[in-house]
Amino acid sequence: MPKQPSVSAGAAKIVDDIVANADALRISVTKGSLGERLIDMGANVIGGLEAGRRLGEVCMGGLGTVAFTQSSGLQNWPLGVVVSSNNPVIACLASQYAGWTISDEASGFFALGSGPARALSRVEDLYKELGYVDHHPQATLVIEGDKAPPSAVIAKLSTSCGIDPTGLTIMYATTWSLAGTVQIAARVLEVAIHKAHALHFPLENILDGTGTTPIAPPVPDFVKAMGRTNDAIIYGGRIHLFVKGPDTDAKRLAENLPSSTCSAYGKPFAEIFADVNGDFYKIDPMLFSPAQVIVSNVETGNSFRAGELAPEIVDASFR
Amino acid sequence: MPKQPSVSAGAAKIVDDIVANADALRISVTKGSLGERLIDMGANVIGGLEAGRRLGEVCMGGLGTVAFTQSSGLQNWPLGVVVSSNNPVIACLASQYAGWTISDEASGFFALGSGPARALSRVEDLYKELGYVDHHPQATLVIEGDKAPPSAVIAKLSTSCGIDPTGLTIMYATTWSLAGTVQIAARVLEVAIHKAHALHFPLENILDGTGTTPIAPPVPDFVKAMGRTNDAIIYGGRIHLFVKGPDTDAKRLAENLPSSTCSAYGKPFAEIFADVNGDFYKIDPMLFSPAQVIVSNVETGNSFRAGELAPEIVDASFR
Amino acid sequence: MPKQPSVSAGAAKIVDDIVANADALRISVTKGSLGERLIDMGANVIGGLEAGRRLGEVCMGGLGTVAFTQSSGLQNWPLGVVVSSNNPVIACLASQYAGWTISDEASGFFALGSGPARALSRVEDLYKELGYVDHHPQATLVIEGDKAPPSAVIAKLSTSCGIDPTGLTIMYATTWSLAGTVQIAARVLEVAIHKAHALHFPLENILDGTGTTPIAPPVPDFVKAMGRTNDAIIYGGRIHLFVKGPDTDAKRLAENLPSSTCSAYGKPFAEIFADVNGDFYKIDPMLFSPAQVIVSNVETGNSFRAGELAPEIVDASFR
Repeated sequence: MPKQPSVSAGAAKIVDDIVANADALRISVTKGSLGERLIDMGANVIGGLEAGRRLGEVCMGGLGTVAFTQSSGLQNWPLGVVVSSNNPVIACLASQYAGWTISDEASGFFALGSGPARALSRVEDLYKELGYVDHHPQATLVIEGDKAPPSAVIAKLSTSCGIDPTGLTIMYATTWSLAGTVQIAARVLEVAIHKAHALHFPLENILDGTGTTPIAPPVPDFVKAMGRTNDAIIYGGRIHLFVKGPDTDAKRLAENLPSSTCSAYGKPFAEIFADVNGDFYKIDPMLFSPAQVIVSNVETGNSFRAGELAPEIVDASFR
Repeated sequence: MPKQPSVSAGAAKIVDDIVANADALRISVTKGSLGERLIDMGANVIGGLEAGRRLGEVCMGGLGTVAFTQSSGLQNWPLGVVVSSNNPVIACLASQYAGWTISDEASGFFALGSGPARALSRVEDLYKELGYVDHHPQATLVIEGDKAPPSAVIAKLSTSCGIDPTGLTIMYATTWSLAGTVQIAARVLEVAIHKAHALHFPLENILDGTGTTPIAPPVPDFVKAMGRTNDAIIYGGRIHLFVKGPDTDAKRLAENLPSSTCSAYGKPFAEIFADVNGDFYKIDPMLFSPAQVIVSNVETGNSFRAGELAPEIVDASFR
Repeated sequence: MPKQPSVSAGAAKIVDDIVANADALRISVTKGSLGERLIDMGANVIGGLEAGRRLGEVCMGGLGTVAFTQSSGLQNWPLGVVVSSNNPVIACLASQYAGWTISDEASGFFALGSGPARALSRVEDLYKELGYVDHHPQATLVIEGDKAPPSAVIAKLSTSCGIDPTGLTIMYATTWSLAGTVQIAARVLEVAIHKAHALHFPLENILDGTGTTPIAPPVPDFVKAMGRTNDAIIYGGRIHLFVKGPDTDAKRLAENLPSSTCSAYGKPFAEIFADVNGDFYKIDPMLFSPAQVIVSNVETGNSFRAGELAPEIVDASFR
């Protein structure tokens, strides 16, 4: 029987290739004061869509692929990503999800860390549920932001991952960079898996998954960029999950998974955010999911579908 | 002038990569009693769509590519494969076609073998016509089924391929597994080349080919799964062939290639199968072809097209 | 900060892989009398679509990707390429553009050279503007034609590139070959960048780009093949550029970029060519651009769009 693959080992290969092609990718690789590797994918560098595509694959710990398409399903925004993982729970929840709160009072540094380093540190309760343990001397942490953490934080992160700081790689890109917008689009499957978890669908019954979403055009404003990248998925994303278990579970998952099940659905995300006066945590987390969903049960052969793309809201957001 | 490439050598590279990533692909690799390598891609393992994508490329002997798309052309079933080969006769007929009848009275084992090992054993008359000879110390045989052959059969297969059993790799996945449904979808080009052969189109005049087909959702019932995977191609597959020779040949090929030329066309395959009381050989073999066809003649620049997708029959089959 | 990557180094890796797979790609690799490497991708060999795909990536100096799609956006001609580059100015103008006029009176040899060797020879004024300098011992020149240059020309080309003839690789394919038609389709982004330059859009403000275009069916007649490959882009191509700078520039670029801004627009290219009695230089160069354009300004978040696909003209041309 196959063992659980190491997301840190999977990511490390992709990171090595990114570093070897840094100039072509228009990114920068530097060494921090503790010997950690800092990779600016889209903050003070041009970066690009391809940098973001690879960053998406790093986030998934090498257990998924991100590919460009020119048929996103949105007439006016054909450029998109196709995301696939044959191990979506580990790829998306154990690695890609931005679940590690990195906060340092002294420096004021704050970020939500994503990527395979999370599975080394296991500071999140989620890992108990996942039953996933990883061991690897190289840790890769991805930050949606404009800078790497200061040394004091690097030291803590390394310790938390059980590695030497020289084995730590921090990759970062802003929400509004070319790489950032692709990296977030590549979360179309992750938000679905995360919501499936919130809906108490048994994670071990999720076998495979694939999805697509348009790429939001970058806009140099955090709220607007956050709005667009969310809207890409909420109103323009669609996924196909393959599950096992009873049809009642599969059907309920399909019916509850689309973003349209949330009362806030229907407006561009930036407006929803303004409506709650910028208090992110007042937004119903059920909003964060793809617009359209197919759930196929491999144990019965039945497929369940719900939700529709909302191209006019994507237009209102991206224009 | 280029020589004919070795399909066994081409497949061996892909197989080695599959073995190196067995855990990530959720497959199992074991050694049989004669030293043969047994790879369960989707029988007693989870496997996945990606395992099936690679299995499709193994079947084509490394002379073709299988890629996922989210724009299959079917509104309700956007997930599909895009299959291409710049040497479709060798990739599809000399390797991918399931033409090797493996039958063992003593054990009751029966399977139709596909993949590059066929071109080493050359037990099929087809090889005389193809004029294709391969030599390689590693043979890869793909079986649509739930188990590998017993030792006695392994011994015979190895001898037939002129290799030591330790050089033999058997890969298997059921029709209703995730890998199986993708591996069969990846036959959209093969069925077209096979039917072109049955229609007596000169094989040497087929230069290149590409196609796409939706991926049938797995269903754990052999007849239903066989039905769906056939329907995916028969009612949802389309191909584009590039040929040389007279336009009359190209035109006739296009007109006769689509599945709609067969009298049984119009019902889900499982119903057609029931109509003949499950006697597969009573079904007109001309049914096994893509729904829609373009044939472009590179010697005249003319293109001929015939057939249409039948999304409502795909819906009736997959739902 | 990233340095400019070497397009000759990038191409050399792809060329080495092509050579290693020559038989599978159905191409031929020979050595010329001065030790230069001659690669026939589609003149006296079958070659294929895949050979053309890789040739397109060679042309872009390894700074772009060319992938097949079965959803080109044209209902009747679904087979197409998706082309992306995160450094489109260097990939397309410094490498892919066929800007090196190679003319030899003694032998009568004439060709327009494209590919990364151009950036080594820097015989074109364009390089002063681009400010791009490359150094590499291996030069790769791509010729749309049926033969490699004679020895006398090889000697001059090598000298011009500052390399030994044994470091020179010439790759060639006719306009009407399978590889040729793909290699030209892969120029959908290049023609846009080239026209942006002609429109005096500041090249340093072009950050990223991607596009798609149908693949014209080969036709064994130079004028017809040139017509179809142009029509594929002019009437069936679409691109998405990501730029910086003022919105007025981005808007003007979008409005002027589509082929429809040219007075000759509206007829298959072969007819336009006949109207000027075959005098290529009488055709308004502004015609050579994609049909449909989106320009997204990453500094303002605004996108500008213009042009439409013209499927009926593509049909008239390809049929």
